Amino acid sequence: MGKLYLIPTPMGETASWDAALPAGNRAAIDSIEYFVVENIRTARRFLARSGIGRTIDELTFAELNEHTPAEEVEALLDPLTKEGKNIGVMSEAGLPCIADPGALLVAAAQRRGVEVVPLVGPNSITLALMASGANGQSFAFNGYLPVKPPDRVKAIRHFERRAHAENQSQIFIEAPYRNRKLFDDILGACDPRTMLCIACDLLEPGQYIRSQSVAAWKKNGAPAFDKRPAIFIIF
Amino acid sequence: MGKLYLIPTPMGETASWDAALPAGNRAAIDSIEYFVVENIRTARRFLARSGIGRTIDELTFAELNEHTPAEEVEALLDPLTKEGKNIGVMSEAGLPCIADPGALLVAAAQRRGVEVVPLVGPNSITLALMASGANGQSFAFNGYLPVKPPDRVKAIRHFERRAHAENQSQIFIEAPYRNRKLFDDILGACDPRTMLCIACDLLEPGQYIRSQSVAAWKKNGAPAFDKRPAIFIIF
Repeated sequence: MGKLYLIPTPMGETASWDAALPAGNRAAIDSIEYFVVENIRTARRFLARSGIGRTIDELTFAELNEHTPAEEVEALLDPLTKEGKNIGVMSEAGLPCIADPGALLVAAAQRRGVEVVPLVGPNSITLALMASGANGQSFAFNGYLPVKPPDRVKAIRHFERRAHAENQSQIFIEAPYRNRKLFDDILGACDPRTMLCIACDLLEPGQYIRSQSVAAWKKNGAPAFDKRPAIFIIF
Repeated sequence: MGKLYLIPTPMGETASWDAALPAGNRAAIDSIEYFVVENIRTARRFLARSGIGRTIDELTFAELNEHTPAEEVEALLDPLTKEGKNIGVMSEAGLPCIADPGALLVAAAQRRGVEVVPLVGPNSITLALMASGANGQSFAFNGYLPVKPPDRVKAIRHFERRAHAENQSQIFIEAPYRNRKLFDDILGACDPRTMLCIACDLLEPGQYIRSQSVAAWKKNGAPAFDKRPAIFIIF
């Protein structure tokens, strides 16, 4: 039986392999001809840039993303379970299976006793958390907040309470075009003393990571984070 | 003013730079002569092995760990704020400021408007989560569980409820010599259908990552995880 390799990719358009990925990841990639990826175009581009030892056309790609029906996930393992081949899993950016649907494939692999091999790479959640000064001994990643205003404010207040009551840093993401909306909602809903970290364009030239109180954010204004991928941490 | 670099180190005794760290991290290390580290001996050994361009004796080290009084943390930034030098932060293993006390120094840096630069490296929490098949779109790292039996069982049940009610993967660590105890406590306290991932010796030759139901763990028995660093995930 083959192994399931979880292969990180760089984040952002400009990030080089040397800045974002261990050199040793190339050896794993070179052992794989079958890839399950969040987005085929992105994955092919990454592999083409990586200087791997084969032409991309020798490789086979299948997509697994939010449009994949759950009942089709199991069959994506066939090359591994039936033909003994390794499979590589790649997300659009960063670590696969974190903040993306790749975990469904890993769960299927674990059910069948397949060896799963995670490789080291960049992750915006941990990079932002490290640099925030927020508690890194207890933290939660909560993905996206609800979009409807009353639910959203309720959720922000819920996570703010949990941040303080449990001393647990609360991490969120938002669609980049809604960063300003989330910023305004947090400033409107949270106690002035609550701390907010905003981290955007991680590992990119414009990287920005700033933690201050809600009161200080109100005074100093929003960062230039429009349409830039951002992480928000309340603590 | 200098910058505060957060410098990951390999996990485990055998991990090589190429397997665990981007080549580019060396350039950041080469810009630094002042380090704040969790353990000076470990940090010196890491730098000696890294083939950096200077002798270790030219470098200055200060320790920041669980024995450091909170009021002494701020002064560790003096070389940066007063002399304009970069500072590098390193933990015992993996990403600094996650599951270690380094966050206190970053918080002080953020208060003073210092630029904080997180580098890419290995993290046992995300490696285990990726490979577990547990939900990676919502998860919490909870550090250590209470040691006293009644509090411990109560905490396990609390986190099991949260795992199911919020579909939030619940991640824990334990002192390696107590792995078996935690395993038994989880098997005793949790519903047979609850999923448990055990990941140990990540990135080491004996790497083991297995997810199965509590019922299946009861039937199949404990892994050989005595005194090996392990991550536990309930989902």
